[in-house]
Amino acid sequence: MDAYDELMARLKDIDLISQVGGLVGWDQEVMMPPKAAGLRAEQLSWISRTGHEMITDSRIGELLSDLESRDDLDEIQAGNLRLARESYDKATKLPTEFVGELAKHQSKSQVSWTEARAADDFSIFRDDLAKMIDMCRQKADYLGYEDLRYDALLDLYESGLTVARVDPLFAGLRENVAPLVKAVVERGERPDMAFVDDNKWGQTGQEALSQAVSEAIGFDFKAGRRDASTHPFCGGSNPDDVRWTTRYSETDPFGSLYGSMHETGHGLYEQGRPRNLDFQPAGQANGLGVHESQSRLWENQVGRSREFCEWVLPLWQEHFPDFMEGVSADDLWRAVNLVEPSMIRVEADEATYNLHIMIRYEIEKRLIAGEIEVDDLPDAWDDMYEEFLGIRPPNRTLGVLQDIHWSFGAFGYFPTYTLGNLYSAQLLEAARKVLPDHDEQMRRGEFGPLLAWMREHVHARGSILEPAALIEEATGSPPSPDAFVTYLRDKVERLYNVTA
Amino acid sequence: MDAYDELMARLKDIDLISQVGGLVGWDQEVMMPPKAAGLRAEQLSWISRTGHEMITDSRIGELLSDLESRDDLDEIQAGNLRLARESYDKATKLPTEFVGELAKHQSKSQVSWTEARAADDFSIFRDDLAKMIDMCRQKADYLGYEDLRYDALLDLYESGLTVARVDPLFAGLRENVAPLVKAVVERGERPDMAFVDDNKWGQTGQEALSQAVSEAIGFDFKAGRRDASTHPFCGGSNPDDVRWTTRYSETDPFGSLYGSMHETGHGLYEQGRPRNLDFQPAGQANGLGVHESQSRLWENQVGRSREFCEWVLPLWQEHFPDFMEGVSADDLWRAVNLVEPSMIRVEADEATYNLHIMIRYEIEKRLIAGEIEVDDLPDAWDDMYEEFLGIRPPNRTLGVLQDIHWSFGAFGYFPTYTLGNLYSAQLLEAARKVLPDHDEQMRRGEFGPLLAWMREHVHARGSILEPAALIEEATGSPPSPDAFVTYLRDKVERLYNVTA
Repeated sequence: MDAYDELMARLKDIDLISQVGGLVGWDQEVMMPPKAAGLRAEQLSWISRTGHEMITDSRIGELLSDLESRDDLDEIQAGNLRLARESYDKATKLPTEFVGELAKHQSKSQVSWTEARAADDFSIFRDDLAKMIDMCRQKADYLGYEDLRYDALLDLYESGLTVARVDPLFAGLRENVAPLVKAVVERGERPDMAFVDDNKWGQTGQEALSQAVSEAIGFDFKAGRRDASTHPFCGGSNPDDVRWTTRYSETDPFGSLYGSMHETGHGLYEQGRPRNLDFQPAGQANGLGVHESQSRLWENQVGRSREFCEWVLPLWQEHFPDFMEGVSADDLWRAVNLVEPSMIRVEADEATYNLHIMIRYEIEKRLIAGEIEVDDLPDAWDDMYEEFLGIRPPNRTLGVLQDIHWSFGAFGYFPTYTLGNLYSAQLLEAARKVLPDHDEQMRRGEFGPLLAWMREHVHARGSILEPAALIEEATGSPPSPDAFVTYLRDKVERLYNVTA
Repeated sequence: MDAYDELMARLKDIDLISQVGGLVGWDQEVMMPPKAAGLRAEQLSWISRTGHEMITDSRIGELLSDLESRDDLDEIQAGNLRLARESYDKATKLPTEFVGELAKHQSKSQVSWTEARAADDFSIFRDDLAKMIDMCRQKADYLGYEDLRYDALLDLYESGLTVARVDPLFAGLRENVAPLVKAVVERGERPDMAFVDDNKWGQTGQEALSQAVSEAIGFDFKAGRRDASTHPFCGGSNPDDVRWTTRYSETDPFGSLYGSMHETGHGLYEQGRPRNLDFQPAGQANGLGVHESQSRLWENQVGRSREFCEWVLPLWQEHFPDFMEGVSADDLWRAVNLVEPSMIRVEADEATYNLHIMIRYEIEKRLIAGEIEVDDLPDAWDDMYEEFLGIRPPNRTLGVLQDIHWSFGAFGYFPTYTLGNLYSAQLLEAARKVLPDHDEQMRRGEFGPLLAWMREHVHARGSILEPAALIEEATGSPPSPDAFVTYLRDKVERLYNVTA
């Protein structure tokens, strides 16, 4: 067998075990009876160990070296080779003992984070976090980097991402979005949320609305499912079996609908993957930033637009006739776009969200570089909230202890959330050039043309290119904050009649 | 590492992949979106191939040979060794090409069976069945046997089963049950089924009834689930994650309840496995016959008893108040025990069911021995139905084409259904000796003592002993048809006032 075919055959088996892992993971969150947790952990550990053995097999190293000397590979083959090399290197560069120690410390550290958060006492988490920071620095050293240590961690979540690439993006946001939020706060206007707050929103209606909207956007329920889970996510096995979840709150009907649109966006991306590249790395979705661009596109760029609110209003009225009486599309639009600085990232609106991320990014960057240490964290956090959002957390639970990510060492993950927001605006701006009727189409619920554009320019391209190159190919420009800033400025002006 | 520990570590991984396979298989029947079927087959094929590679690893052969020379093993270790040897031999004795060819022919043959059945034309299936019979004879030769070829196939579904052991069981049934059925038919009485036939039975009530009864019997829903599927089954991963299904019919409310009790019986057996033997072969349930004894116990021995009907009547009344008005426990008992010879095995009652199985067993025995060939099958089938059930199938669909089993070569499987019925009666007869109040307990819905007896004498014993030895240990006698015949004779006399 040719070396390339042999590599592809091995990668197919690795993809299959990861498909199985995806399904088993989904089941754990959605279906598993409570007593099954212990043995489920054994199953997942077997899957992860076996997958690790398969990707670190020395034969893969030999095949890669062999193929890397060839110059007759086409774009897809080159993409597969690049991605396989990345996976192989990331898996082999970390010593087995280090991986085991890290996994053990992740479990321990998540426990102390949970306790610290409940007790509002950073000191409970302090030592475990200090060790986790050290281990992540060590991890970066094992993985290697050209410029900054933090780059090695960023690269884990979006291939090719570096501080040199991210810094200008956040600079653009800091200069433009922070003043915008300040202007809204100073104006002090708040939309009328009485129709939301005064009602108890039943689950049946929310489910029907969520299903109807997801179907309208184009999610294929013959190749996927919608279920409920405590933490909404999109998972499953493969493009024919995409499973997303949402959750329902009696007091907040927007959570389930916009959560559904968010996960539907992730799901559409998975369903749109290039099927001629099944089981190949180049056929996978392209990292967390691009994935988030697809969820944010439908959740925010589409779902929180004035036009979408016009289209969706009759569905709200159908499923909640009593509650929606007298509520106009404009009321709905203002309600789903409430801009209000708050302490909590996961509850933040479109305007303030990226400031939450920027704060985490700046802290992580300095932390991994050794410019600040664990004991500087709590106050550094509060100071930046005061500087950029104008509010100071009254305690650690609402401050530095709010996110779980650092407790399992996911330094470098947060920026992909903001990349997603920027990419979504940049992609929609590009799509609008060939879809001049976009706003009208949204108003009529014609989501097909926009989806088709994303299918062609994003989904079908898999991971053939690095994420930044994919964005440039699709939009004509490298990743930039400009489209997002323009979009947000325009929107906030229309909503709050302010400029900044 | 000691050879025994090394073998156990390998068997643990083999068990884990089989747990994962169980979960993925369950998902396929219950949750999977339709378009996912193709890639799901790839996942399952990877799981089965990998599991096969793990059990046929030559290191397992070395460890087995090493350990088989030791004489210091305790009962459990000896059981593990015996079972591991069986699995290893069964997996290694069949040449890989043969296994592949058989799998391919199974798919082909199931298709032609489906077509033949739909067209009521045996000739469509004839050639594929002929080849399947040949392949199963060949399979038996690969596996090896002492006395008869068919023994090698029987042994696949219940360890140690042979024609020499099965023949006397069916002889006892043929001599005693066939005349009993004849007497009922000649008497020509039929219970009043109007309350069943005249109503449309809603799914919600059936679900609530099924859930309530399964909980009352003792199924732990914190370690398992109930769902709906086209073909009811009990599956899942392990004793902490046991998943059974049922189906609902508007015209037949007994199907879901008795199906639920059947699968609950399977599920209780799985939940009762010895937890100190997790991941070990000796900790598994003990073959298909014993498994069926546990399902039949709760479905028939308990569920179709007069006392159970008294206990369950108020639940029927609670969930179907209108339909159950004026229906007494006696009416219910007679309705769930309708004895009536029919063409179709899966719809057969307790009295006639084993005659359906006996016919298949006698045909398989002669077929694998080469005493009859494929072209003799259709008439041999019809002749035996006429002889033992007094009815002659009017076509092939109701005759030789009714079961799917032969199309995938499952010769030797059918007898385990009857073994289950015999074992269930024999086990209950033994349990009654220490549970003198059994009937009263059933009347009061006190199922704990009977379950506790089964837990101790059957479930907790795993597969430490061969199935026949387990039955003898639990009941004091080797497997026999006597308890079942006594039970059935007594019941039919009470129901139909006939003797035979």
